[in-house]
Amino acid sequence: MEELPLAEQFEQLIQRGDKLAIAEFLNDQNISDVAELINEYPDYEAQIIANMAIHRAASVFKILDITEQRRIVKELPPFKTAELLNELPADDRTDFLEELPKEVIRDLIKLIDPEERKITLSLLGYPEDSVGRLMTPDYVYVYEHNTVDEALSVIRKVAKSSETVDVIYIINEKGELVDDVKLRDIIIAATDKKMGELLDGRVVALNVNDDQEHASQVFKMNNRVALPVTDDNNILLGIVTIDDMLWVANEEFSEDMQKMGGTEALEEPYLETPFFKLIKKRVGWLIVLFIGEMLTATAMAYFSDELAKAIVLSIFVPLIMSSGGNSGSQASTLIIQAMAVGEVSLSDWWRVLRRELLSGLTLGSILGSIGFLRICLWHFLMQHGVIQDLYGPHWLLVGFSVGFSLIGVVLWGTLSGSMLPIILKKLGADPAASSAPFVATLVDVTGLVIYFSVAFIFLKGILL
Amino acid sequence: MEELPLAEQFEQLIQRGDKLAIAEFLNDQNISDVAELINEYPDYEAQIIANMAIHRAASVFKILDITEQRRIVKELPPFKTAELLNELPADDRTDFLEELPKEVIRDLIKLIDPEERKITLSLLGYPEDSVGRLMTPDYVYVYEHNTVDEALSVIRKVAKSSETVDVIYIINEKGELVDDVKLRDIIIAATDKKMGELLDGRVVALNVNDDQEHASQVFKMNNRVALPVTDDNNILLGIVTIDDMLWVANEEFSEDMQKMGGTEALEEPYLETPFFKLIKKRVGWLIVLFIGEMLTATAMAYFSDELAKAIVLSIFVPLIMSSGGNSGSQASTLIIQAMAVGEVSLSDWWRVLRRELLSGLTLGSILGSIGFLRICLWHFLMQHGVIQDLYGPHWLLVGFSVGFSLIGVVLWGTLSGSMLPIILKKLGADPAASSAPFVATLVDVTGLVIYFSVAFIFLKGILL
Repeated sequence: MEELPLAEQFEQLIQRGDKLAIAEFLNDQNISDVAELINEYPDYEAQIIANMAIHRAASVFKILDITEQRRIVKELPPFKTAELLNELPADDRTDFLEELPKEVIRDLIKLIDPEERKITLSLLGYPEDSVGRLMTPDYVYVYEHNTVDEALSVIRKVAKSSETVDVIYIINEKGELVDDVKLRDIIIAATDKKMGELLDGRVVALNVNDDQEHASQVFKMNNRVALPVTDDNNILLGIVTIDDMLWVANEEFSEDMQKMGGTEALEEPYLETPFFKLIKKRVGWLIVLFIGEMLTATAMAYFSDELAKAIVLSIFVPLIMSSGGNSGSQASTLIIQAMAVGEVSLSDWWRVLRRELLSGLTLGSILGSIGFLRICLWHFLMQHGVIQDLYGPHWLLVGFSVGFSLIGVVLWGTLSGSMLPIILKKLGADPAASSAPFVATLVDVTGLVIYFSVAFIFLKGILL
Repeated sequence: MEELPLAEQFEQLIQRGDKLAIAEFLNDQNISDVAELINEYPDYEAQIIANMAIHRAASVFKILDITEQRRIVKELPPFKTAELLNELPADDRTDFLEELPKEVIRDLIKLIDPEERKITLSLLGYPEDSVGRLMTPDYVYVYEHNTVDEALSVIRKVAKSSETVDVIYIINEKGELVDDVKLRDIIIAATDKKMGELLDGRVVALNVNDDQEHASQVFKMNNRVALPVTDDNNILLGIVTIDDMLWVANEEFSEDMQKMGGTEALEEPYLETPFFKLIKKRVGWLIVLFIGEMLTATAMAYFSDELAKAIVLSIFVPLIMSSGGNSGSQASTLIIQAMAVGEVSLSDWWRVLRRELLSGLTLGSILGSIGFLRICLWHFLMQHGVIQDLYGPHWLLVGFSVGFSLIGVVLWGTLSGSMLPIILKKLGADPAASSAPFVATLVDVTGLVIYFSVAFIFLKGILL
């Protein structure tokens, strides 16, 4: 039976209906494998959780999607839910509860033991996306005057219930954070040494109101598996562990991506988001962009006399517009990404502007030349009767109009695409909101104006 | 002096030129603060590294950008570079070396001690983006028959030189991985217990050839700070620590973003990428898209007779095109993001298709109605002489043409935007390559065809 894939082993057990065997089987698996079983057999999800040792059930529960968590809590008998909620580490409990409607939170919180309930309520009091929401109060602390031996016996006592004992915290009588010590350093120290002698005075702490993104940055730059969290008075409130950072990074990533694609950030996975919620998240930006794009109709109407005189001009409108949009979204994505990972900051705006000025001119010249050559080539084909003559005797001037417009439009797209995220950030908004569609829309309208202005210079008195 | 910001303290020390005081000052700071000093005072970067205790210098060096690392190695005297390279953990050394040109790697590898050189060469032999490149061979292992006491003395001996001792590995005589044990479990166990008794038989291991993205997923789903890495025969080769995952997530994120913006992934930060390299990364896609967009000129030329007859049609070309593009990039970003974090897989294509069919119809109907209303409104303004009459007596039919085209174009944009990433993945390509500009281009051409076809239905024999 060892050789069968997990799913098949599980199915056999389910068919046999032997609860004890199922429980034993589930307790033998890695939590990630159990989580996968739940994904595969949603019908048994509550049963799977209910049949596991409660400690392991909590470990599985915390890595499930919020929608699965919700369904499971709905299906479990209340006493099981209570057990589960009490077993869940404080940070994961906050993480689960904060996604629920207020009435449900109220009902569930009643199931939690008084001590844990107090902790949960205080954690839920911190602002969303703050370090406080990620924090767990299950850390190990000792005082400077404790010996290594005393520290070790504290660690032994609480090791099972603490989120991590890999780092131990030293506090003073006021509860202020003094320093952190790695478990490894305690183990190699003589047992009669005072803890105070192990300190290096270099403590990195997070503030409970810090942004979660900031926390992720601090973890990246400091080689720690856990960081202490203090309030403004340096009182140690809890710790944040590095594994939560992987989830934070994931969430930030998803949000940034969604915004850049012109959607409001979804709170749930795409497939789990109810249809009308999905539409609501999408339609807002689409309408704003649509109304913005209506200006293109105004611009086109303004130039309608020119269009009527030289229908050939209208042929290149889509090409010119999209080139501006493409170069704009390219530039804006590059800058948003660089700002998101901290490579470009506000003070770099001048360096970015110079770079993009040059990039825009270079890219524009390349596309402009290709556009010009294409018109020359088509003219040649038209002359030889391969295709219908559209450009007329002034094909060269049309070519110049298109070529030079492309330089202008691409330059403009690149500049506005790169500057917009910086301006948004300066104004305190999220740079990712300058989504590709937003930049494209902005560039489309001005692109038309550039095109018709350039065409006017070349073709005035000839076609126009 | 305690009260001054770090940078000012540093400047004062530099001015005094007291090397000993500088060294002392640097050794007192957190490595992330030293890294920031290096960012702020690039002129002193090599000096800063040279003046620190070598162990801490290595910790700072490994979190710097590759461009800073390169400059520092160029400026340092060879004996310092040798010291630094030897002190660098094996995984960070690989990470640094893999970014360098082959000749430089060859020169630098000569500076490394024979034992470490062997390790480095073997790590560099693993494919890029594989777990092997992240691995460090500095792990702690014991055998099943060892006692807890023996294990602790091994840990004490190697604790200083190992990347992490928070998890200990149990191997058998063949070097095969048996299990991993957390340091905390060893500490709370009786010292005469055999290590074999502490095992839970649930080991999660990575294969050395696994993709780094996969590793990040495994870390997320299993509560571990380090994971063992084995070859195909289950021989333990090294370990990967969770802090590396934050860097991997960052890199994946940057790459996906850049691709989605229509740029090839940059290897260096935006501002550090040489100008012509940046152009090279950008121009490829822009040219491809430009040539694709040329089809719009072909389509417009094809409909030029219609355009000449009803110039009013050309007015709405940009609006229709961009609506398709915007809804397309929105849909594609949503799906790429959902696939990147594992929320949508290939087998979900049918569910996605159904959702997007309905979404496209809904969003299209909303935009179509707005477009239709806007034409009615303008008509009203024209009739009252507020603006010039452009739509003529058939304004209602023009309105219907635009409205229904919008439904079609938005539906088409949504469908192709959502299906393209799935198709690309199915073909083995990166879904992120279906960038917003790419989808927009694809939709532009077909959008025109949809528009003119719908207009033909409504206006045939009237305007056309």
